Amino acid sequence: MHKATTVFHAPPSVITSAAVGGKKENEGPYGKYFDKINDDPYFTRETYEEGECQLQKQAVRIALEKAVLKEEDIDVLIGGDLLNQCVGTTYGVRDYNLPFLGIYAACSTMSEGLLLASMLAAGGFADIAMAVTSSHFCTAERQYRMPLNYGGQRPPTAQWTATAAGALAVSPKGSAPYVRGVTIGRIVDMGVTDANNMGAAMAPAAYSTIREFFRDTEMFPSDFDHIVTGDLGKVGSRLLCEMADEDAIDIRSRHLDCGLMIYDSDRQDVHSGGSGCGCAASMLCGYFIPELKSGRLKNILFAATGALLSPTVSQQGESIPSVSHLVWLSSEKGSAEQ
Amino acid sequence: MHKATTVFHAPPSVITSAAVGGKKENEGPYGKYFDKINDDPYFTRETYEEGECQLQKQAVRIALEKAVLKEEDIDVLIGGDLLNQCVGTTYGVRDYNLPFLGIYAACSTMSEGLLLASMLAAGGFADIAMAVTSSHFCTAERQYRMPLNYGGQRPPTAQWTATAAGALAVSPKGSAPYVRGVTIGRIVDMGVTDANNMGAAMAPAAYSTIREFFRDTEMFPSDFDHIVTGDLGKVGSRLLCEMADEDAIDIRSRHLDCGLMIYDSDRQDVHSGGSGCGCAASMLCGYFIPELKSGRLKNILFAATGALLSPTVSQQGESIPSVSHLVWLSSEKGSAEQ
Repeated sequence: MHKATTVFHAPPSVITSAAVGGKKENEGPYGKYFDKINDDPYFTRETYEEGECQLQKQAVRIALEKAVLKEEDIDVLIGGDLLNQCVGTTYGVRDYNLPFLGIYAACSTMSEGLLLASMLAAGGFADIAMAVTSSHFCTAERQYRMPLNYGGQRPPTAQWTATAAGALAVSPKGSAPYVRGVTIGRIVDMGVTDANNMGAAMAPAAYSTIREFFRDTEMFPSDFDHIVTGDLGKVGSRLLCEMADEDAIDIRSRHLDCGLMIYDSDRQDVHSGGSGCGCAASMLCGYFIPELKSGRLKNILFAATGALLSPTVSQQGESIPSVSHLVWLSSEKGSAEQ
Repeated sequence: MHKATTVFHAPPSVITSAAVGGKKENEGPYGKYFDKINDDPYFTRETYEEGECQLQKQAVRIALEKAVLKEEDIDVLIGGDLLNQCVGTTYGVRDYNLPFLGIYAACSTMSEGLLLASMLAAGGFADIAMAVTSSHFCTAERQYRMPLNYGGQRPPTAQWTATAAGALAVSPKGSAPYVRGVTIGRIVDMGVTDANNMGAAMAPAAYSTIREFFRDTEMFPSDFDHIVTGDLGKVGSRLLCEMADEDAIDIRSRHLDCGLMIYDSDRQDVHSGGSGCGCAASMLCGYFIPELKSGRLKNILFAATGALLSPTVSQQGESIPSVSHLVWLSSEKGSAEQ
């Protein structure tokens, strides 16, 4: 039987990455790692939705520029976002004349995009494959909860959708960092119905995928500098570590969560932490990939997590299925035997 | 430069497929090609959305049964649909414990799913990769236009969203039909803003991809029994053939459109034809794949088309970007040199 995990014989390389953020993201602890900051939530446009499109457009352009690539060097662009019908992506990238594959994995979108880009590159189907995603606080609030003007109260378990985007490109040829392996997540639904507690809904999916990676590869948490989750926030991160503790898997000592990194939760009033496709994507593209490229980090697991609900089915009383896709990134290419 | 088109050295095989439909689809000209018909639009559930989930659940199960496969034989399931956050898929397949990749390509979803499943199989990343998608008239009306109870008038250019699903599985090992090649579509936006005229919005995307396939492969329409589009309907099909005429590419003589096939438009009052992810998917899985398997058809191009709008951005005055992914299916495996 095939496994959900693929370890690449010839690991493809992440040849460029870019992170774009908003004002609040700039004020967070990782503000200096963003390639571009936009103080205006409208991005000089008429609507928040158009603003979110600019996030993706900028991220793709900067990722191209950083590697001195032209649009036509890209064989395929893979992208998606949280908005209905993924319009942040499709309207954001429609001016790039690129073969385009739309994906939907909620806040796990960058994991899925990087995973697919790596497979297409390693499989010989693309010389350069790009992945992009974004989220925007104002569009997400309108769509998933309340329009901002409503002034709704946020419970302590709620998370703050990051106004941010990340883009990266993968190629069979290139230098560090390398994508050494990937695990395709399974949908996990433990019956959580509180759409204001996404961390609790997503933690079991993250744990399921991380455990599956260790089982499939026979590796250990100690093989990695960090095990990075997407946006579990305070509540979900605690649950993840507790589940791992029960199986005596030491995730706790090397766990980082992008949702807990991107903001200073005490100072920035974000309750349980950051969230949104752009949260994990910008931390990966702005911070982790450069750290791996420089060799300051050697090996990380990047497991962004997505809650696959919609407001319609939540209102119909449904629980929240989640998914987490995982990517093993390394500063070393490894041996062909692996 | 890499091309948007991949012609496989070792074409993977479509080892099973299943089509599920509703009452109206059963009454259409291809009713007998469905593996299962559900007369109840609720599928014995409480909501139309739950009904749509059943469509996908049934399609996956029947596709497995027809090939005597077990759930655990599947390495990855790729799926998406038209509903916000693709909940028809995620809630429909959550009970299958399968590695899952969510995609979004509107009504081009089966093309994208089959394309990706073929790449993952041909690339050695999956022994068996499945793709699934669906649409449901009642969920689509509620979400994209008006709840059914509103009793809105439909203009003559409008299409009827099929209540249908298709599922298939691809493997590096197997018999006919084979996936000989794929073309990843580019987003095309010609400025059409009428959400009741999807055919006109999508036709340029279909033509862009079909033309790119012929250019990349140096093949001709005469190499194919049929050039099949997804759901251009009457208006879009006419536009597609006119665009091809201008470039002296004879699509017209072998063009079929699933949206024009699935219903008898005179008798069934569907205006410009059928539409929805399930329209092209069920015609492919129920009719074309069995015809190719039997050898009654030798070669087809399958280019489903998707309109990438959302109601939110349509209300903001935006035009409708579209995409069309293409798959070349053949009853023959071809030579390794191709």
